[in-house]
Amino acid sequence: MLTLESMPNRPCHWLMGEGPKNDILISSRVRLARNLLAFPFMSKASEPQREEIQTTLRSRLEKLKEAPGHLYVEMSDTHDIDRQMLMERHLISRQLAAPDGSKGVFITEGEDISVMVNEEDHLRIQAIAPGLQIQECWQKAGMVDDELEAGLDFAFSDKLGYLTACPTNLGTGLRVSVMVHLPALQLTGKIDQIKQAAKDMRLAIRGLYGEGTEALGDFYQISNQTTLGRSEQEIIREFNDQVVPRILQAESAARELLVEENPLLIDDRIGRALGVLSHARLLTAEEALYHLSYLRLGVTLGRISGLELSNINNLFLLAQTAHLQKLRGGELDEATRKAVRAEFIRQKLSRGNL
Amino acid sequence: MLTLESMPNRPCHWLMGEGPKNDILISSRVRLARNLLAFPFMSKASEPQREEIQTTLRSRLEKLKEAPGHLYVEMSDTHDIDRQMLMERHLISRQLAAPDGSKGVFITEGEDISVMVNEEDHLRIQAIAPGLQIQECWQKAGMVDDELEAGLDFAFSDKLGYLTACPTNLGTGLRVSVMVHLPALQLTGKIDQIKQAAKDMRLAIRGLYGEGTEALGDFYQISNQTTLGRSEQEIIREFNDQVVPRILQAESAARELLVEENPLLIDDRIGRALGVLSHARLLTAEEALYHLSYLRLGVTLGRISGLELSNINNLFLLAQTAHLQKLRGGELDEATRKAVRAEFIRQKLSRGNL
Repeated sequence: MLTLESMPNRPCHWLMGEGPKNDILISSRVRLARNLLAFPFMSKASEPQREEIQTTLRSRLEKLKEAPGHLYVEMSDTHDIDRQMLMERHLISRQLAAPDGSKGVFITEGEDISVMVNEEDHLRIQAIAPGLQIQECWQKAGMVDDELEAGLDFAFSDKLGYLTACPTNLGTGLRVSVMVHLPALQLTGKIDQIKQAAKDMRLAIRGLYGEGTEALGDFYQISNQTTLGRSEQEIIREFNDQVVPRILQAESAARELLVEENPLLIDDRIGRALGVLSHARLLTAEEALYHLSYLRLGVTLGRISGLELSNINNLFLLAQTAHLQKLRGGELDEATRKAVRAEFIRQKLSRGNL
Repeated sequence: MLTLESMPNRPCHWLMGEGPKNDILISSRVRLARNLLAFPFMSKASEPQREEIQTTLRSRLEKLKEAPGHLYVEMSDTHDIDRQMLMERHLISRQLAAPDGSKGVFITEGEDISVMVNEEDHLRIQAIAPGLQIQECWQKAGMVDDELEAGLDFAFSDKLGYLTACPTNLGTGLRVSVMVHLPALQLTGKIDQIKQAAKDMRLAIRGLYGEGTEALGDFYQISNQTTLGRSEQEIIREFNDQVVPRILQAESAARELLVEENPLLIDDRIGRALGVLSHARLLTAEEALYHLSYLRLGVTLGRISGLELSNINNLFLLAQTAHLQKLRGGELDEATRKAVRAEFIRQKLSRGNL
């Protein structure tokens, strides 16, 4: 059974699992936005109504066939560090983590499905998987959606489709996204071209933890922006068949070019990453991510040995502030976090005999 | 016999030798400025006169009892890289290295004495030694001065003392200096106090290679500024008994304080230095110096083992642009130098089994 206490020690499904193309594509995610017909949208709902929404939805969610072993977290009862841990695992959004009013999240035992209650919409159904598995995520999210819809009335217009708090979600309520690792596009200075191309294709491009975290460790979340006037299958097919291959191809080409034309530059970054991570005594999360990004590149390009990709991916998570504190059993001030983070990473890397 | 070709492979006397207090005080240096009575000062001397000065002085210098095994380098015949190498070894000044007119340097086989001809003055006699050896340097420079004066008439006024091109050297023509390593004063933010105190004591404080190289690897050259109206013994006694102990005491206290109050900060810098130097594939001279400085601190504080201070001191020299090129047997462009420097340092550190 999944609990907040066991969570930091468990492998993070989408980050550490194996998946197609995960040398570049870390994870796939599909999200559906839904609202209950019987209640006003969140911006108009009173606190008692919000509580009623949560009670209703929680009881439905806990009867899902995916529910055995699940965890339901009511945000108001939950410590800051736990809320941040859920964010670091991409199980909830920054908005859900904010401590205001009745809201919660349902998480399956495998952490492959999470359903946020009373975020921007009443329901945000999310399926996440390692590597390129957009269709698989779509199936999982769709199944939860179908199960819930069998017993609930969702706000729906024959003309517009699913009604949502924000017009960008209107229609299918679908958002498809991938998290990609683009260090070679960054190093070769081509990342801005990719960002522009993404804009031209009406895609949103964000950093590891959403807006304002661009380029943190060269990780980017790329997602569709409009859901109105197109079918779910169209959106998913375009994303899967057009968008993703272009990004993967661009990063692959940049990696090949780098290896061919400037191997010293890559090996320098990879070497420094290994040198700093295995010797520093104080590390911020940002610096850890920066260097882990190059370590990841080194492993996927076969330029360092003795390290597993899943171990590095795990370090990405464990270097984060909340995970670190959970593992150490309590709140730590910033200076102590830097020291603990560095010690932690150093130990993990030395176990790999580097 | 000392030659320009054998030089880069030879240990650098002042940098690698053992000397008192050389955990902080790298080297001591005494310099005497002298001019020949029979010739105008450098600013007024014609090129034929400069040639005559050099011919006269070279023949005297080569008869010194310190001359056996010596090297005399005429600057006009000498390659850029060799001139820069002499500068990196502190055997000549930047001014002497500039390619204009007749000038040269006499260097003893042990590199402990060098005499520049036609620098700012006709003669600049310099003795240099590792650690705190100001008196020893003064004796050596004085002996050369006496030997030369036995057969040459120096410009001298009974009232003013030795006459020199720049009034700051008037009187004794003496400059005493030490090169100190002050990383703890830098880390604790107290270096500016020391700089101000030096100013108040009418001392000049400069970087590793003179003006404009302040704080390069936390190395500083500290020297007396005025020589008029005081005897040589007074100047040396004050410098040796007052100035140097104060600086050593301040850096020692800062090191103790750091170890006591913030050992993680030191170990972080030392660890990163070791990590970067033993893993980077591209290094500028500046970055190499920066990290070598912390490696040196780590060894002197006993916080890293398996490394000798003399080896690190040697790396300081070999990381420099001209030494690097001499060792690789020719001119290298900047990008290649970065790669060669990194490779070189990595090899040397891995031989130390780190």
